Amino acid sequence: MRVVTFGEIMLRLTPPGYLRFFQNDTLETAFGGGEANVAVSLAGFGVDAAFVTKLPDNDIGTAAIAELRKYGVDVSFIARGGERMGIYFLEKGASQRPSKVIYDRKYSSVSEAVVSDFNFDAIFNGAEFFHFTGITPALSDAAAELTLIAVKKAKGKGLTVSCDLNYRKSLWTTKKANEIMRTLMPFVDILIANEEDAEKIFGIGAESSESDRGRISREGYTGVAKKLITEFGFKKVGITLRESISASDNIWSAMICNGGECYFSRKYPIHIVDRIGGGDAFASGLIYGILAGMSDSDMVEFAAAASCLKHSIEGDFNRVSVAEVNNLLSCGGSGRVQR
Amino acid sequence: MRVVTFGEIMLRLTPPGYLRFFQNDTLETAFGGGEANVAVSLAGFGVDAAFVTKLPDNDIGTAAIAELRKYGVDVSFIARGGERMGIYFLEKGASQRPSKVIYDRKYSSVSEAVVSDFNFDAIFNGAEFFHFTGITPALSDAAAELTLIAVKKAKGKGLTVSCDLNYRKSLWTTKKANEIMRTLMPFVDILIANEEDAEKIFGIGAESSESDRGRISREGYTGVAKKLITEFGFKKVGITLRESISASDNIWSAMICNGGECYFSRKYPIHIVDRIGGGDAFASGLIYGILAGMSDSDMVEFAAAASCLKHSIEGDFNRVSVAEVNNLLSCGGSGRVQR
Amino acid sequence: MRVVTFGEIMLRLTPPGYLRFFQNDTLETAFGGGEANVAVSLAGFGVDAAFVTKLPDNDIGTAAIAELRKYGVDVSFIARGGERMGIYFLEKGASQRPSKVIYDRKYSSVSEAVVSDFNFDAIFNGAEFFHFTGITPALSDAAAELTLIAVKKAKGKGLTVSCDLNYRKSLWTTKKANEIMRTLMPFVDILIANEEDAEKIFGIGAESSESDRGRISREGYTGVAKKLITEFGFKKVGITLRESISASDNIWSAMICNGGECYFSRKYPIHIVDRIGGGDAFASGLIYGILAGMSDSDMVEFAAAASCLKHSIEGDFNRVSVAEVNNLLSCGGSGRVQR
Amino acid sequence: MRVVTFGEIMLRLTPPGYLRFFQNDTLETAFGGGEANVAVSLAGFGVDAAFVTKLPDNDIGTAAIAELRKYGVDVSFIARGGERMGIYFLEKGASQRPSKVIYDRKYSSVSEAVVSDFNFDAIFNGAEFFHFTGITPALSDAAAELTLIAVKKAKGKGLTVSCDLNYRKSLWTTKKANEIMRTLMPFVDILIANEEDAEKIFGIGAESSESDRGRISREGYTGVAKKLITEFGFKKVGITLRESISASDNIWSAMICNGGECYFSRKYPIHIVDRIGGGDAFASGLIYGILAGMSDSDMVEFAAAASCLKHSIEGDFNRVSVAEVNNLLSCGGSGRVQR
Amino acid sequence: MRVVTFGEIMLRLTPPGYLRFFQNDTLETAFGGGEANVAVSLAGFGVDAAFVTKLPDNDIGTAAIAELRKYGVDVSFIARGGERMGIYFLEKGASQRPSKVIYDRKYSSVSEAVVSDFNFDAIFNGAEFFHFTGITPALSDAAAELTLIAVKKAKGKGLTVSCDLNYRKSLWTTKKANEIMRTLMPFVDILIANEEDAEKIFGIGAESSESDRGRISREGYTGVAKKLITEFGFKKVGITLRESISASDNIWSAMICNGGECYFSRKYPIHIVDRIGGGDAFASGLIYGILAGMSDSDMVEFAAAASCLKHSIEGDFNRVSVAEVNNLLSCGGSGRVQR
Amino acid sequence: MRVVTFGEIMLRLTPPGYLRFFQNDTLETAFGGGEANVAVSLAGFGVDAAFVTKLPDNDIGTAAIAELRKYGVDVSFIARGGERMGIYFLEKGASQRPSKVIYDRKYSSVSEAVVSDFNFDAIFNGAEFFHFTGITPALSDAAAELTLIAVKKAKGKGLTVSCDLNYRKSLWTTKKANEIMRTLMPFVDILIANEEDAEKIFGIGAESSESDRGRISREGYTGVAKKLITEFGFKKVGITLRESISASDNIWSAMICNGGECYFSRKYPIHIVDRIGGGDAFASGLIYGILAGMSDSDMVEFAAAASCLKHSIEGDFNRVSVAEVNNLLSCGGSGRVQR
Repeated sequence: MRVVTFGEIMLRLTPPGYLRFFQNDTLETAFGGGEANVAVSLAGFGVDAAFVTKLPDNDIGTAAIAELRKYGVDVSFIARGGERMGIYFLEKGASQRPSKVIYDRKYSSVSEAVVSDFNFDAIFNGAEFFHFTGITPALSDAAAELTLIAVKKAKGKGLTVSCDLNYRKSLWTTKKANEIMRTLMPFVDILIANEEDAEKIFGIGAESSESDRGRISREGYTGVAKKLITEFGFKKVGITLRESISASDNIWSAMICNGGECYFSRKYPIHIVDRIGGGDAFASGLIYGILAGMSDSDMVEFAAAASCLKHSIEGDFNRVSVAEVNNLLSCGGSGRVQR
Repeated sequence: MRVVTFGEIMLRLTPPGYLRFFQNDTLETAFGGGEANVAVSLAGFGVDAAFVTKLPDNDIGTAAIAELRKYGVDVSFIARGGERMGIYFLEKGASQRPSKVIYDRKYSSVSEAVVSDFNFDAIFNGAEFFHFTGITPALSDAAAELTLIAVKKAKGKGLTVSCDLNYRKSLWTTKKANEIMRTLMPFVDILIANEEDAEKIFGIGAESSESDRGRISREGYTGVAKKLITEFGFKKVGITLRESISASDNIWSAMICNGGECYFSRKYPIHIVDRIGGGDAFASGLIYGILAGMSDSDMVEFAAAASCLKHSIEGDFNRVSVAEVNNLLSCGGSGRVQR
Repeated sequence: MRVVTFGEIMLRLTPPGYLRFFQNDTLETAFGGGEANVAVSLAGFGVDAAFVTKLPDNDIGTAAIAELRKYGVDVSFIARGGERMGIYFLEKGASQRPSKVIYDRKYSSVSEAVVSDFNFDAIFNGAEFFHFTGITPALSDAAAELTLIAVKKAKGKGLTVSCDLNYRKSLWTTKKANEIMRTLMPFVDILIANEEDAEKIFGIGAESSESDRGRISREGYTGVAKKLITEFGFKKVGITLRESISASDNIWSAMICNGGECYFSRKYPIHIVDRIGGGDAFASGLIYGILAGMSDSDMVEFAAAASCLKHSIEGDFNRVSVAEVNNLLSCGGSGRVQR
Repeated sequence: MRVVTFGEIMLRLTPPGYLRFFQNDTLETAFGGGEANVAVSLAGFGVDAAFVTKLPDNDIGTAAIAELRKYGVDVSFIARGGERMGIYFLEKGASQRPSKVIYDRKYSSVSEAVVSDFNFDAIFNGAEFFHFTGITPALSDAAAELTLIAVKKAKGKGLTVSCDLNYRKSLWTTKKANEIMRTLMPFVDILIANEEDAEKIFGIGAESSESDRGRISREGYTGVAKKLITEFGFKKVGITLRESISASDNIWSAMICNGGECYFSRKYPIHIVDRIGGGDAFASGLIYGILAGMSDSDMVEFAAAASCLKHSIEGDFNRVSVAEVNNLLSCGGSGRVQR
Repeated sequence: MRVVTFGEIMLRLTPPGYLRFFQNDTLETAFGGGEANVAVSLAGFGVDAAFVTKLPDNDIGTAAIAELRKYGVDVSFIARGGERMGIYFLEKGASQRPSKVIYDRKYSSVSEAVVSDFNFDAIFNGAEFFHFTGITPALSDAAAELTLIAVKKAKGKGLTVSCDLNYRKSLWTTKKANEIMRTLMPFVDILIANEEDAEKIFGIGAESSESDRGRISREGYTGVAKKLITEFGFKKVGITLRESISASDNIWSAMICNGGECYFSRKYPIHIVDRIGGGDAFASGLIYGILAGMSDSDMVEFAAAASCLKHSIEGDFNRVSVAEVNNLLSCGGSGRVQR
Repeated sequence: MRVVTFGEIMLRLTPPGYLRFFQNDTLETAFGGGEANVAVSLAGFGVDAAFVTKLPDNDIGTAAIAELRKYGVDVSFIARGGERMGIYFLEKGASQRPSKVIYDRKYSSVSEAVVSDFNFDAIFNGAEFFHFTGITPALSDAAAELTLIAVKKAKGKGLTVSCDLNYRKSLWTTKKANEIMRTLMPFVDILIANEEDAEKIFGIGAESSESDRGRISREGYTGVAKKLITEFGFKKVGITLRESISASDNIWSAMICNGGECYFSRKYPIHIVDRIGGGDAFASGLIYGILAGMSDSDMVEFAAAASCLKHSIEGDFNRVSVAEVNNLLSCGGSGRVQR
């Protein structure tokens, strides 16, 4: 079971605890980015996962690679060079104060990567699954082109392809996102989205969605998924359903549709430690479920539980094992000490 | 728009996280005090705010001034000299364990300041607003005298005067508070209080108040405000309404009465990061609302939202912008990440 | 009022905040263990408390002793020698992710202690109360033998003996626990347990208990207590009743039965800072209540309030005073700042 | 006495202590850059110092401005906008392991600033002194053009102009540096350099310099200074003389030549806390000496002592007072505790 | 072997590492004061040491007591009450930048203590040795009176009395020090001083002392000691000889004279971790030497080695054992790892 | 170029900075052990390095493996199981206070490993070099047996075998060390030792060694090396020469003898950050030198420079690149900032 992901990994810098930006003189470091997060999570599930990107040839790029390797990700196809590594600054919200992200990712090595940086034929050898997110093609025109090359090659070599829409308004307009993403969708088997992405990118929204008030319409999202399947022919659509009560408390669940049927996971009332990477943890759970041959209803529960746990873990990466996900599914999250 | 505040700023020393006093070997430092907090908050709203006090001529006093300057407060009228800077030790509560404050503020430079330390004529030049709290006259007889001089001068020069009652039982008795505060009230236009101050200082309480059980009687507090207006002739009375569920969770709202009408803000269920300075943040919001010409109903919402956000921020100071307060008012505090 | 406790104290190593094991490069140190926790808590209540154990003759053992002495515990009967001090690694859970404990306590000095290490005749001189937990006899056959010697000697010298069942599946099987604990029960006056211990050790459970789903059956636990009293002749049985909603939130209460009557404390919805030592804090409250001559209904309230507060305090030790417990009982835990 | 400096301020990120880059998960933050360091140091000496730059309109830029304001620097002419703030990563060396700097400063707001961002006529009003370093024109062609505009305007308004050569090989070649710097020198009165800059930029070196082996030739540097004065007509040339024994220990001194005479300061054997900003501290001392009307021999001692102290202070900024510099000059650095 | 010490213990607040005051937002806490330091050091040597003072009845006073108890000091005679605990802020120097102390100790409980706070008859029961420093009588007139009462009582009960001169210019003038200290000297057996105290208090200095330049005249200090013995009739005079090279490096040695002979210890070139408490560590070593019946030449070596080690230990307290001091004496401080 | 090392890796726990054990409440974590350190260092030089050990199947063992993988070490032959991971507590010395190590490594998984845990035939496939230290056979009789099996197999498959004597008195007596090590020496090609090991294990010492006084006799160590070569037939003997001035300062150099000739490296006066692992860094440099085909004189310089740099790096691992070692060799350690 080998999965390849392709995208950007950034240096993440966060003030300690709930301090505002530069309220004291330290920043906590981590590395993260949608596709890297998925690779780390899958490696933690025991999957042979490779992450492909381009990183500058300095100690920061080297540290990012070391961190990925620490979690067992295959880093042998990471290209080195270019000007800089993308950075994002994260200020954690609490109660009514939202979390805040400042991106400083422009001119990153991967956003300026070229075709010759990657040998996708070699990269996909022996792989079953290719995953990317809507962030990668949004990085630059060059990155969009590379993504198209990758996805075509993956498809041509018989891999299953998953895409997490992940719309980022700081990277492109909805108009450009629509245009580029539509060129990639024909090669995608599994579509993953949160409750807002499909509307922003493809204009396919829940008709009477109440998501802006933090409530999810079950019917609305079934409709969204079915429209996506009808329009693009995906095998499955997975949607994460986040009800934001405050920056500290969310209710989390997910849905998977396979054309015919839609399955909703149980709902988790979450006390948030770190919500960044929650969607990536869901994607990882879903990919793992497919590789492990789970039924759709088991899969949505596994992926929702895995991503529920992510919210209790600092950093972008979901450092949980399959056993821990299953423990949540079987014991119900009551939080008894495990001695 | 220039606002002057006058009072004491202290060095605040807090164990990290939820540790008890001296449970480990570090204390986190901050500076704070009612009037200083208001000045910093107003400066953050873009107001020209000056803070007046007296600080010892050593590195601790200098650090306090640097911190105020950092946030854009005019510190040019701060007198230097005297014996020491007041200190308060804060242990943060959690769940059923209340927060604890140990004051070591006696003999502070400002409590022993004399008339010649301040040229209030120059201080109030060009200012529209003067704010003080009931802590300043409580510091010492000299401070009470200085407060009276300041408030008379402010009134004489046509400034609007606001006072936050802020009763502190460690500084004076209710009897002395009543006596001194009554001499100051004639010069006050805007009175600010929490749900207990008016009763303790003036004996004007909500008749069937349930505040001791953490529930606020809407009618009771309307009555308190109206009695205060009737007795002292205030233009407005603002009251913060804190329902304490535990040291971790409060419900927060506020009320403004203008004689004829009373307006209640929406209620915020708050998960507390740091509640010190919540009342000062409310006062700042109210002063800003007046300076910005808001209606009373808008003002109470603005001030309540501003002070709601304070509870999510470490330290005494409310480090939020007008845009962030407005964002809470328009988006409802659901805590979505701002990218 | 002198109380003696006997058992193991371990070095506790915990990643900061909610980090997973070794997610960063620091561990926070503390010392703790059931009987040591009870001694520290009682010393904090003003009781003359002695803790008896064996610790290696190195800087780690010396540090443990210094820490106990810091809190006023009599450490003069602690034997020195043996190979090592037990260690436990604690990863704090959050939300749906449970806390995790890794024990590295095998071969500890106290588990290999011998009869000649302790002069129980001298140890019990002037004492009124002896407390141990089910962990001590579980450490090793030698420790079980020592416990039997201690409990017989205590009984012989007229002390009241209390035992907290504290079943630890990593130390022994339910079968062995049953066998050994039955030899000790004849010497026990006061039995303390959580909602699961009695079932695991003695097979005496609440018939239709719903504790696995985090709900406590009031009737069920009354039945358990009565059966325990009938079978073993205890003077009192105290049971802590933890309803686990998640790793972050619990509902906490307790019950005391004296044969004839059972008394339930009020329930506390707890936002957890650190739940380790909650049961020990309850035992301490109960022992204090007995020493102070409280009625059973007052005692269960005192012990439940004391152990409620423990959940808000980092580390194994319950660093609270009698005044703080009484403050919770009289003020209801609304968490107002104490200035 | 008003001094204006113009250049780039960066976010500085440093691992704690002597850790290598990303050896643990924290970075300590500071802000620094040649001209900003000089402004802060001068403000600490009581001089009215303004720093001019362009910073992005986000929380990082705002934090940099707040930090400057904290130290009393006039920030009212800082332009806002552009893409990003420059960053530099600093790994502190120790013993035989050198300190390491990774620059991530490309595309910074100030490097892409345009003429309309700054009204130098207003900026220089009331000022006596303008200071810049060779880093500013090295940032970009636009920055070089802006520097020329600034320096001409300063000269035209009668300011004294100082320039610290500060050659940075990561920003430009020696060839380009020579070309651009030669266009600026005609407007410079006071030239400051370290023991290598003049050789790298202008090819004017100490003939048999042993600086590469950490030894300074007194005669060699006198010659360099005199050649610079002859060629460019500077009023004064100040040169810092660093003898690097290791990353932990340096011997520090300085020289000032005024055409006719050269003055060497005493030598300081320094145990390094943080050497970044040492040269800027020297420049600040020299500018202060000129403003204070010191003789050249006093000035070189003052500037050398000020910059000696910088090496004992964390961060780029030299947080010392005139009194502290004078104390070193009069007491000789024996380090007795000042109570 | 029981030793009683009497004086003030303060809360010590220090920025981390070599940061300047308030350069970041944390202060490290410790407790310390001349006589407390001696008691802790002696307890670490296995001596039964009691420390007598008065501390406020709040959590800060309680924490100070707990810390003393942790190290085995008898705290049973510490009076509680009064207004506050003294505080001192310490900024650690490095290289040419000296350490800096800001005292905030006025109005401390012990400085306002009264005769009825202490039952010196009970306090000295069973004791052999009484130690105080010149700081105690300097605190206030009341404290001077108490010191005289204590020293008379100690002498009357046959204790050996030692006094460390410890002149503090922030507490009194040399004139007042001379006057008060002369009333105490008749009761003192062992006088301890550093290289400057005797000159400042009694005007007895080394005639051509070069101590101001960091060099010690062996002959000069022999003369000082002999004059002190002649004038006051001390049994022994111990003098610490600190040659300050910089705030980072000192050369440390000591001398003991007994009237007839003077003995100098070996010299230690010290790389300083924390020099506060060095003199107290010397006093402790000297007292231990007397109690242990060492010869004067052994005693000065033991006391010098003990206080040498203090410089490598953070905080005021000298946390070393007799074995560690002896190890330095026998192995010579080469610093091989002890496995 | 593939190198295999076999031994124990421990969890290392160190108080921050120069604090004594448990002086505050944190321990810094790292992983280390002679053979693991060599593997990490070699991987950092670009060598394909595998580390073989047995670790418990818990999160601590997993973290150790992740850390090794982070640095690129092949961990695929690490056996899992057994009771526990060895721990060592390290207190860093300073000035005259030596560093202190407390081992808690008994019963570790690798010390109780059995033959079936390792398939040395597979392990050595494709490898050129096998390295172990005298610690491995000292762990237990089982470990000694495993070492003999490994070394025979390595030799049989044509690998070069290196052994670092590394005598540990806490693990075995000199008598037992002599007996066991003599059985292993016939299979060793390259012997590595510090200035004391050979004397303690084989009784082969420098005749008039002054190493106890921190001075190394050049002739003495040449003699030791030659005797070792004569007696055991090693191809090369490498000896590190540490002159301990204090716990803060050492002079470091090394020697390599090949039978005919002995080569001494230059001497480095080192200001110590962390000296643990210095010998392992030397061994790594020597192995790298052999693999890279360096001459003996180049090799000793490379290995001495690599291990010199280790002393400036926190933790057991030598995180330096070949380029950094070469930079020290060519630039001489003057510590100029590398920008």
